[in-house]
Amino acid sequence: MAGASVTPTPLLKDELDIVIPTIRNLDFLEMWRPFFQPYHLIIVQDGDPSKTINVPEGFDYELYNRDDINRILGPKASCISFKDSACRCFGYMVSKKKYIYTIDDDCFVAKDPSGKDINALEQHIKNLLCPSTPHFFNTLYDPYREGADFVRGYPFSMREGAATAVSHGLWLNIPDYDAPTQLVKPRERNTRYVDAVMTIPKGTLFPMCGMNLAFDRELIGPAMYFGLMGDGQPIGRYDDMWAGWCIKVICDHLGLGVKTGLPYIWHSKASNPFVNLKKEYKGIYWQEEIIPFFQSATLPKDCTSVQQCYLELSKQVKEKLSAIDPYFTKLADAMVTWIEAWDELNPKPSISNGPGK
Amino acid sequence: MAGASVTPTPLLKDELDIVIPTIRNLDFLEMWRPFFQPYHLIIVQDGDPSKTINVPEGFDYELYNRDDINRILGPKASCISFKDSACRCFGYMVSKKKYIYTIDDDCFVAKDPSGKDINALEQHIKNLLCPSTPHFFNTLYDPYREGADFVRGYPFSMREGAATAVSHGLWLNIPDYDAPTQLVKPRERNTRYVDAVMTIPKGTLFPMCGMNLAFDRELIGPAMYFGLMGDGQPIGRYDDMWAGWCIKVICDHLGLGVKTGLPYIWHSKASNPFVNLKKEYKGIYWQEEIIPFFQSATLPKDCTSVQQCYLELSKQVKEKLSAIDPYFTKLADAMVTWIEAWDELNPKPSISNGPGK
Repeated sequence: MAGASVTPTPLLKDELDIVIPTIRNLDFLEMWRPFFQPYHLIIVQDGDPSKTINVPEGFDYELYNRDDINRILGPKASCISFKDSACRCFGYMVSKKKYIYTIDDDCFVAKDPSGKDINALEQHIKNLLCPSTPHFFNTLYDPYREGADFVRGYPFSMREGAATAVSHGLWLNIPDYDAPTQLVKPRERNTRYVDAVMTIPKGTLFPMCGMNLAFDRELIGPAMYFGLMGDGQPIGRYDDMWAGWCIKVICDHLGLGVKTGLPYIWHSKASNPFVNLKKEYKGIYWQEEIIPFFQSATLPKDCTSVQQCYLELSKQVKEKLSAIDPYFTKLADAMVTWIEAWDELNPKPSISNGPGK
Repeated sequence: MAGASVTPTPLLKDELDIVIPTIRNLDFLEMWRPFFQPYHLIIVQDGDPSKTINVPEGFDYELYNRDDINRILGPKASCISFKDSACRCFGYMVSKKKYIYTIDDDCFVAKDPSGKDINALEQHIKNLLCPSTPHFFNTLYDPYREGADFVRGYPFSMREGAATAVSHGLWLNIPDYDAPTQLVKPRERNTRYVDAVMTIPKGTLFPMCGMNLAFDRELIGPAMYFGLMGDGQPIGRYDDMWAGWCIKVICDHLGLGVKTGLPYIWHSKASNPFVNLKKEYKGIYWQEEIIPFFQSATLPKDCTSVQQCYLELSKQVKEKLSAIDPYFTKLADAMVTWIEAWDELNPKPSISNGPGK
């Protein structure tokens, strides 16, 4: 195709991996081809490792199944969930790139109000490359966007903003509802396109959904652990929530920004609300205690790296949440294992090795 | 016109006053006639009281000029600003209604993306009548809106939300920029219609603009003081900001909600940036200290009424901000005078008088 047309190099082409957890053939990639093909994919195959996952031709990818995870992590593989899309966080760990975009395999390209296909990845990258404003609210939304700015009364000393660690995208069509809401409103569809990117203010928690999510691995990667879910665990569908609570507390502590809003993807199919209810019911109950715990969690000043923050948080989880259920003791231990595995796969360059990697 | 057509009674017709500060004839009301005519207007005439303000026919209004303010408040009139639109807060005080909508006389009816006139007042009323969600962030924006709900991971115990005290509307065309931004971007216009109403989370401050603002007088009225600005004061254009910082701290303390977003009005004309710079420059400097003060301000538990909260805040202002400039001592005293005047004009029914007013 050389010479056929001059296309601009996609943003961050060599600095971003797309992580996709799946149990089926990745036909959904056909629709994403114009946007994803320039990037490298990390596919985390869940469930039966003997099954073959078909990836459409022309994509550059690596694929890990459970056997691979066990082989690479050894006993530490216990921290990676099985039979739950929480397994995707293994992809964050094996990536060597600065940025990660993760998307579910039932998410398709959405259209903006003018009918144009939305390049979700491009919007996420813009969100990540542009600062956040966690310390004061700007009423005209993202002040860095073209045609917008900080409004009267926004302190000038805060206008540089904070580095953005996380970009949380939204969903048209099937909204991300819990099982009770799915049951009560089976026909509700999200048709409203809100043309905004918001910074979630410091001190405020939010429900982070893993369906359409991008982040800066260097800034927050080691905290993007999706917990213990699925096979052998008392809970499911709280993997992204768990990660969301943890990353928000740590981003607030480290002065990093978290954004939500654009881009939208088209979420094609609601999962079964009865199955979801079974997975969720303990979480629905437990979150009433977990959220106040995270709302009041503080980290000591000497925690200056994400790893330090995360290990400190694991201690607090063990101390304060184990009374809810022994599961949280196991989860706190898995948080430590996760960090150990992360550091093993992502060794810091030591001084004796000289500069660079 | 009786019998000509059956029109629905406008929302809260007898429970809301529209407060308009002005120095000129109110021709702008012609455009608002279909929306405002059913409501009572309180016009606060600023500047020369001998000047006659022309109000288009058919509107139900009361008008107060400086002579009236002086006559009604006596020596306490000192707390009401002169030659500054901050004088509008006198209207909040003399109103006997539960709700207030205040709008500037250079604001016109905006159009939504479908080209339809926006009934700003109706949207404000909807915002006020519907709860806020200050304690946890809902990624699909207002969960009470039709077609929306709380997303997965939103704690069920928080889904009743909080009573809404304030609805802050936005502006198409001329954005509410400070003088430096006006000077740098004289041609920037806000053309982006964001179809969302957000709750400003607990613990987060925002720059509240008085151009297009509604609130519940019973819930937060006594804190809606627009300070000392204009004639004889070292500062202008910080009246609404001051009120915004105070009401947010008090709403957070009392568990009340503050919303921003829809509705938009059409802001027709940018004020002179050179004049604005003169009014603002001290505020721009001072806000770097004032905002951290409000960000860390806490109120004691035994402050359970807005008045108690406001008097406590006035003490803290005197104690902690007077070092910036003697102006803040004067302002703290004016805050106390304001509450005295408010209580004088809005006496609580005493038990000995029996039930009711």
